[in-house]
Amino acid sequence: MEESQRQLLQRSRLRLVQELQVAPLWDLLLHKGIFTQDMIDEIQRAGTRRDQARQLVTDLQTRGRQAFPAFVSSLQETAQNDLAALLSDGCKPPLLRPLDIKPIYILKTDPCGYCLIINNVNFSQGSDLSLRAGSDVDCEKLERRFRLLCFEVLTQRDLKAQEIDQELQSLARRDHSALDCCLVVILSHGCQTSHIQFPGSIYGTDGRRIAVEKIVNYFNGSQCPSLRGKPKLFFIQACGGEQKDRGFEVDSDSPVNEAHSGNLESDALPFQIRSGEMDEPDAVASLPTPSDILVSYSTFPGFVSWRDKKRGSWYVETLDSVLDQYAHSEDLQIMLLRVAHAVSAKGIFKQMPGCFNSLRKQFFFKTK
Amino acid sequence: MEESQRQLLQRSRLRLVQELQVAPLWDLLLHKGIFTQDMIDEIQRAGTRRDQARQLVTDLQTRGRQAFPAFVSSLQETAQNDLAALLSDGCKPPLLRPLDIKPIYILKTDPCGYCLIINNVNFSQGSDLSLRAGSDVDCEKLERRFRLLCFEVLTQRDLKAQEIDQELQSLARRDHSALDCCLVVILSHGCQTSHIQFPGSIYGTDGRRIAVEKIVNYFNGSQCPSLRGKPKLFFIQACGGEQKDRGFEVDSDSPVNEAHSGNLESDALPFQIRSGEMDEPDAVASLPTPSDILVSYSTFPGFVSWRDKKRGSWYVETLDSVLDQYAHSEDLQIMLLRVAHAVSAKGIFKQMPGCFNSLRKQFFFKTK
Repeated sequence: MEESQRQLLQRSRLRLVQELQVAPLWDLLLHKGIFTQDMIDEIQRAGTRRDQARQLVTDLQTRGRQAFPAFVSSLQETAQNDLAALLSDGCKPPLLRPLDIKPIYILKTDPCGYCLIINNVNFSQGSDLSLRAGSDVDCEKLERRFRLLCFEVLTQRDLKAQEIDQELQSLARRDHSALDCCLVVILSHGCQTSHIQFPGSIYGTDGRRIAVEKIVNYFNGSQCPSLRGKPKLFFIQACGGEQKDRGFEVDSDSPVNEAHSGNLESDALPFQIRSGEMDEPDAVASLPTPSDILVSYSTFPGFVSWRDKKRGSWYVETLDSVLDQYAHSEDLQIMLLRVAHAVSAKGIFKQMPGCFNSLRKQFFFKTK
Repeated sequence: MEESQRQLLQRSRLRLVQELQVAPLWDLLLHKGIFTQDMIDEIQRAGTRRDQARQLVTDLQTRGRQAFPAFVSSLQETAQNDLAALLSDGCKPPLLRPLDIKPIYILKTDPCGYCLIINNVNFSQGSDLSLRAGSDVDCEKLERRFRLLCFEVLTQRDLKAQEIDQELQSLARRDHSALDCCLVVILSHGCQTSHIQFPGSIYGTDGRRIAVEKIVNYFNGSQCPSLRGKPKLFFIQACGGEQKDRGFEVDSDSPVNEAHSGNLESDALPFQIRSGEMDEPDAVASLPTPSDILVSYSTFPGFVSWRDKKRGSWYVETLDSVLDQYAHSEDLQIMLLRVAHAVSAKGIFKQMPGCFNSLRKQFFFKTK
């Protein structure tokens, strides 16, 4: 590194320590050959984000001629444009073409966004829907997890369909200007419904249902402008339908997870879906620009989702473990592949998570 | 590296050169700190897959004590178990727990699978659907691209709905046992339809439509057992609906791409959708285990998709460029984020690609 670049880094040190988002940089700096994984592990062990930023600025100066321009271009690629501009006197970074940029959502704020968890456990007698034992385990896990991932967590338990609706609308109406993303988790019974964009419906405790499509669209660009261009994530732990045993028919050699079977329940409806009963035929007219949305389903539309009365649902248990192990280093889509891989391996395809998205960038959680 | 490990590598050299799938390894070897990106670039420049494998085995021996066990565990993580077993005498690799494995689909065969491209350009007079000028450009690009990516490409032009149906069924009925994946590309007009799993329909040249859900499900685990557990990829360049100008309403400051506007057409229907007209109400009963499927839509359900009469569609042009630049190093989901990012940036959210998937692993194309 040239002496002038080193001095520029030193002069910018304070702002870098304050503002630098390190998490999205590791992958880029690895791929550009500036650091090895061992070196990055070492920097990550420095402590908090600020400590890591300080260490990164120090170590960078020992990494050869390419280190400075590679760092500046990584800042550009991760949309840290102010910091890139601060350092750009020190090199002539080549103009990046749109396709050259590895697109990454940047989470700068703390908290990075709201996380609303709706946890439906007890359903009204008339609803024919059973107690969702184990759901509180899921809920507590996710509250803890998403707090660690810098979300402001809001939890609601046992809501009727209309209350769910109100809760979501109220969240969508908040001002998210000072936040970088938004997350909604629904833990409930569900069923399949035919829709234009996002499939499935979830149940209120009164047995009335609300379409996932409707939930998602409260947060789109036109209904929730302060989240425009920001990632909106939805995690749905609910049944996609009543096709419980299909996986076994197809893969009859798949072992049943005997150890759990005594405690296993499904989030399916115990009766047939009322076919022909369509939700929100007018939803089409109000569908607006649907970008930056990811909906992760615990199970694929049309299939059941399994829950252990003591340990909680397969999906949430796996999601929580994967986030624990990999949120500091991997992007959300790769982590969801890990979840799908692990959940589907339980009794081979008995449950198959799915994911529908209109994301434009990689999403890395913010880790403390 | 210990001398015994070096000798074992030398003894296994012939099989490694013949069988080693190098593409999925780069990322892992980078992250494990065995090679820097520069070193990997150098190995990739060695030439064909075989040449790269040979170079990798040579260079590995110079990379320190961790190189051998890291290489063996990378073989395990990429499901190259035979090769891992071949080398496992040389180290005691720790038993990996399911969540520790980075799941990756392995493409070993050459060709790796069929790629069927259905290219509808001319529509019958009664259909009210216009000539899709520029679609042949798309088709030729993708034929060339997917041949380079080791697919056996089959192309069909101007098919009626029933012919599309027959073509897909005939592809699904083939024996894919000796192949590792399957790819279907549809270039046509499209419209939105309400469905349980995958949204949208595409048009035959006779103006009759066929649901994307139906297309996808010909290839699922029960209807096409020889593709069970293997990735099935669908790329749909067609309209998701007639909501052409919504993006502008939402982001009224977005610039129109004037240079193109004279040649721009949409793959939308020029008239209102026939609401209430539902496809395949019986599809539900026949939906089977829906794993390992990815459907990439040129545009989000409900929205139009843009095509330039001379350069072809925005989506295919971008997809082809991204595959050209990144297929050798990045997995499909990250590349699709790049496509979404670039396409949505054309006139900001005028067109928003989307992706629905039940993949369980990362997908890396096989490069020659």
